[in-house]
Amino acid sequence: MTTASICTIGDEILIGQIVDTNSSHLARALGEAGVRTDRMVSIADREEDILTTLEAELRTHDIVLTTGGLGPTKDDITKPALAKLFGSPEMVKNEAQEAMVRTILHSRGLDILESNLMQAMVPAGCEVIPNRFGTAPIMVFRFPESRFGHPATLYAMPGVPHETLGMLPEVIDDIRTHNALAPIAHRNLMVYGLAESALAALIAPWEDALPADMHLAYLPNTLTGVKLRLSVYGSAETSPESRISAQIEALKKILGPRIYAEQEDRLEAVIGRLLREREETLSAAESCTGGEIAHLLTTIPGASDYFLGSVTSYAVSVKEKVLGVPAATIREKGVVSADVAEAMARGARQLTGSTWAVATTGLAGSEGDGVNEGGTVWIAVDGPAGTVSEKRVYHNDRERNIERFSASALDLLRRCILGTIHA
Amino acid sequence: MTTASICTIGDEILIGQIVDTNSSHLARALGEAGVRTDRMVSIADREEDILTTLEAELRTHDIVLTTGGLGPTKDDITKPALAKLFGSPEMVKNEAQEAMVRTILHSRGLDILESNLMQAMVPAGCEVIPNRFGTAPIMVFRFPESRFGHPATLYAMPGVPHETLGMLPEVIDDIRTHNALAPIAHRNLMVYGLAESALAALIAPWEDALPADMHLAYLPNTLTGVKLRLSVYGSAETSPESRISAQIEALKKILGPRIYAEQEDRLEAVIGRLLREREETLSAAESCTGGEIAHLLTTIPGASDYFLGSVTSYAVSVKEKVLGVPAATIREKGVVSADVAEAMARGARQLTGSTWAVATTGLAGSEGDGVNEGGTVWIAVDGPAGTVSEKRVYHNDRERNIERFSASALDLLRRCILGTIHA
Repeated sequence: MTTASICTIGDEILIGQIVDTNSSHLARALGEAGVRTDRMVSIADREEDILTTLEAELRTHDIVLTTGGLGPTKDDITKPALAKLFGSPEMVKNEAQEAMVRTILHSRGLDILESNLMQAMVPAGCEVIPNRFGTAPIMVFRFPESRFGHPATLYAMPGVPHETLGMLPEVIDDIRTHNALAPIAHRNLMVYGLAESALAALIAPWEDALPADMHLAYLPNTLTGVKLRLSVYGSAETSPESRISAQIEALKKILGPRIYAEQEDRLEAVIGRLLREREETLSAAESCTGGEIAHLLTTIPGASDYFLGSVTSYAVSVKEKVLGVPAATIREKGVVSADVAEAMARGARQLTGSTWAVATTGLAGSEGDGVNEGGTVWIAVDGPAGTVSEKRVYHNDRERNIERFSASALDLLRRCILGTIHA
Repeated sequence: MTTASICTIGDEILIGQIVDTNSSHLARALGEAGVRTDRMVSIADREEDILTTLEAELRTHDIVLTTGGLGPTKDDITKPALAKLFGSPEMVKNEAQEAMVRTILHSRGLDILESNLMQAMVPAGCEVIPNRFGTAPIMVFRFPESRFGHPATLYAMPGVPHETLGMLPEVIDDIRTHNALAPIAHRNLMVYGLAESALAALIAPWEDALPADMHLAYLPNTLTGVKLRLSVYGSAETSPESRISAQIEALKKILGPRIYAEQEDRLEAVIGRLLREREETLSAAESCTGGEIAHLLTTIPGASDYFLGSVTSYAVSVKEKVLGVPAATIREKGVVSADVAEAMARGARQLTGSTWAVATTGLAGSEGDGVNEGGTVWIAVDGPAGTVSEKRVYHNDRERNIERFSASALDLLRRCILGTIHA
C-alpha cells in the first residue's frame, strides 16, 4: 500500500497559536485516493528540524506532503532547506509561477516587490505546479530509489488553508498519475443512546468475526453520540464496497433504531430532514439548556422552514407568564419535574402553533436543589398524539451537561417523530 | 530550555475524520509554564508505530505528552505498547482510578463492565493521576537517565477533549514540580470590536518599541474578539512581572474601552459580573442567532441570578404574537431592520420585566433577501435610558456568522451597561 506522511512547518502551530486543520483535509483526500497516511508531524521553522524530519519521513514513506514555511517573510526557511535536502543548491526562476505572481498581485492592486518575485525561484530539478491561489508555487521533488531505498516524492505546499485546499486536487492528480493506488472504503453509522463500552459489548460477536482487512473505530462525542466507522483496504482486483455493505447491513440489524444516520450527521440535521419530509413544524421551551437546543436546530441551513421559535424560561415568572405553566404545578411538583417539563412543551406548542415541541427543565450545574441531584434533567416532547417525558442524570461539568441534556432531548424528539416511542 | 513533544495516537486523526485540537491547547499550556514544544506527531493505533515514535521522541525531548488510544474498546492498543516501552509487562490495579471508574459509571446510571474496570489496570511502576472526567487514568512514566541519555518523562493522557483539557492543569503542575522551569510571564488583554489588522496598525508604534525579550501574540477568535498576549522570558535573577506591567499599562492607554477584560475571559462572563454588581437583570430576543446568545449567557454558573429568559422568534408569527413587534413595522421596514430589532428588544424587556434586553435580527447564511446581503445583522439593546441599535455585516459561513452576531450583540450590551454608549 502506498503510504504518506504529512508535515506542517511553522512555529505558530507549535506554540498553540493556530490549530492545524490542513493535515486533516489532506489525509482525507489521500485516503479517498487510496493512500494511507500513517504519520503527521509538526515542526518549527528551524533548518535542522526540517532536514532531520523530512529525511526520516522520506525514508519511511512513499510520499511526503509538507505545508507551510513558504511565505515571503524572514521566518520562512523551508525553501533553502529543501534545496539542501534535494542536493540542488542552484535556484532557478519558474516562468509559469512568476507570471502567476504578477497576475495575482496586479488583481489585488498591489505593487510587485522583489520579495514577491523571489517566490518564483525554485531549486533546480524540482517540478512546479503553479499555485493559482497565492504567490508560493507547489514544488515536487522526486527522489531516485538510490537515495532512500525506494522511490520517494516530496510535495511542498503553501500553508495558507485556502491555498493548500485549493491546490490539493492537482496534487492528488499528480499522485494518482505516478502511483498505482488501491481503493479504500469507509462507512459510518451514527448511534445515540448507548455508551461506548455498552455499545462495544453489544456488538462484540459481530466485531470479533470481522475479516482481518476490516477495521472498526469508535468515535464518541457528547452531541452526536458514538460514530462507528468501518474501513476496508481493497486490493486492485476486488472492490471493497459490496463486502463492506454486507457487514454494515448485519450491524444495522443488531443496533436497530439506535442508529440515527448512516453518514456523518448530527441529530438536529436528521430531525430537520424528518420534519421537512412530513411538512411538520417544531418549537422549544428551554430552562436548563438555556437556548442550546434552539441554537443547534438553527445551525442547520433552512431551519426556518420548520423551526418556529423557542422560549428560554430561566425565571419561574417566564415559565408561568409566557409558557403558561400553572403556578400550582411548579409549587407542588417543583421546577425540575415531569409535570413542569410536559407543561412547558405543551405551552411552547400552543404559543407557536407548531406540530411538535420539545422542553427541558433541570439542573445543569453540579449542585442539587435538595430534591434532585446536580445534572438531573426532565425532557419532554409534546406532539399530535400527546406528551412524553423522560428523566436523565449526567455528571459532567455545566457546559457538558447542557450539551448532553440537549442531545438527549433531540434524540427523544427524533424517536417521537419516527413513532418508535409513544405518548 | 525544557522541551516537549506532543503525540496523538489514533486512526481517526490520520484518516482526516477529526481535527486534532488537543495538541494546540497542550502546546499553549506548556508554553505558558515555560516548556517549549518543538514537535507534534500523530500516529495510528499500531503497536510498532507507537513504540518507534515514542522511543524517538523520548530520546530527543525532556517531556513527551501523548493523547488518545486509551479507550475501553478494541481499537485501543496504546496501554500494552506503553507497558512494553517502559519494560514493565506486569499490569497492576490502581485503586484510586478504580474508585473513580465506579463513581463515574454509577453517577451516569451505567452498569460496570469488565472492560470499564480494565481501565484502572496500569503498567507496574508508572505513576497515576486519576482522571476526574473519564475512566482512563493519566499514566506518568519516568524513565531513568540511563535509558535515553537524559531523564525523560512520558505523560499518557486520554484523547477525549474535555478529559484532556480538564486534566491538563494537573499534568502541568506535575511538570512544574519535576522540572526547573525558567519563569515566563504572560499578560492578556481581551479586545473586542477591532479586526486583527486594524488593531495591529493602531498599536504598531508601541509594538515596534518592545524590548527584544518581549513578544506580542494576536489570538483572534470569533466569540471573544482578539486576545493580545504579551510574553516575556525571564531569567532566574530578575522577575519579569514589573516590566510587563509597565508595557500593559501603556497599551491600555492606547486601546481604552476596546479592552473588555484583562484576564482570559468571555464577554458573557464580564456581562454577568456587571449585572450582578448592579443588581440588574437581562432578557433576550433572538431571530438569526437562534438561541446562541441565551446559550452563551447560561453557560456562566449562577446566570439565573440575572438572566430571566429569552424568546427565539424564528417565525414572523412569534415575533408578532410573543414579542409584540407590530405587523406594520415588519411589513414596512422588513424583518431585518433597526425598527424590528428595537421592537424585539423592547418586547423581550416588557415580557420578562428585565432591566436590559438584547435582540438580533438578520441573515446568518450567505444569501441575501433582496434588500440586505447575507451576513447582515441588526442588533439592539433596550434599557432604562432607551433603545440603541447597530448594523453589522460579516462574510463568514452560517455558524461563524451566528457567533459573530452574538458576540457583537453582547459587546453592544456591555457598552450600554457601562454607559460608554447611550440611547
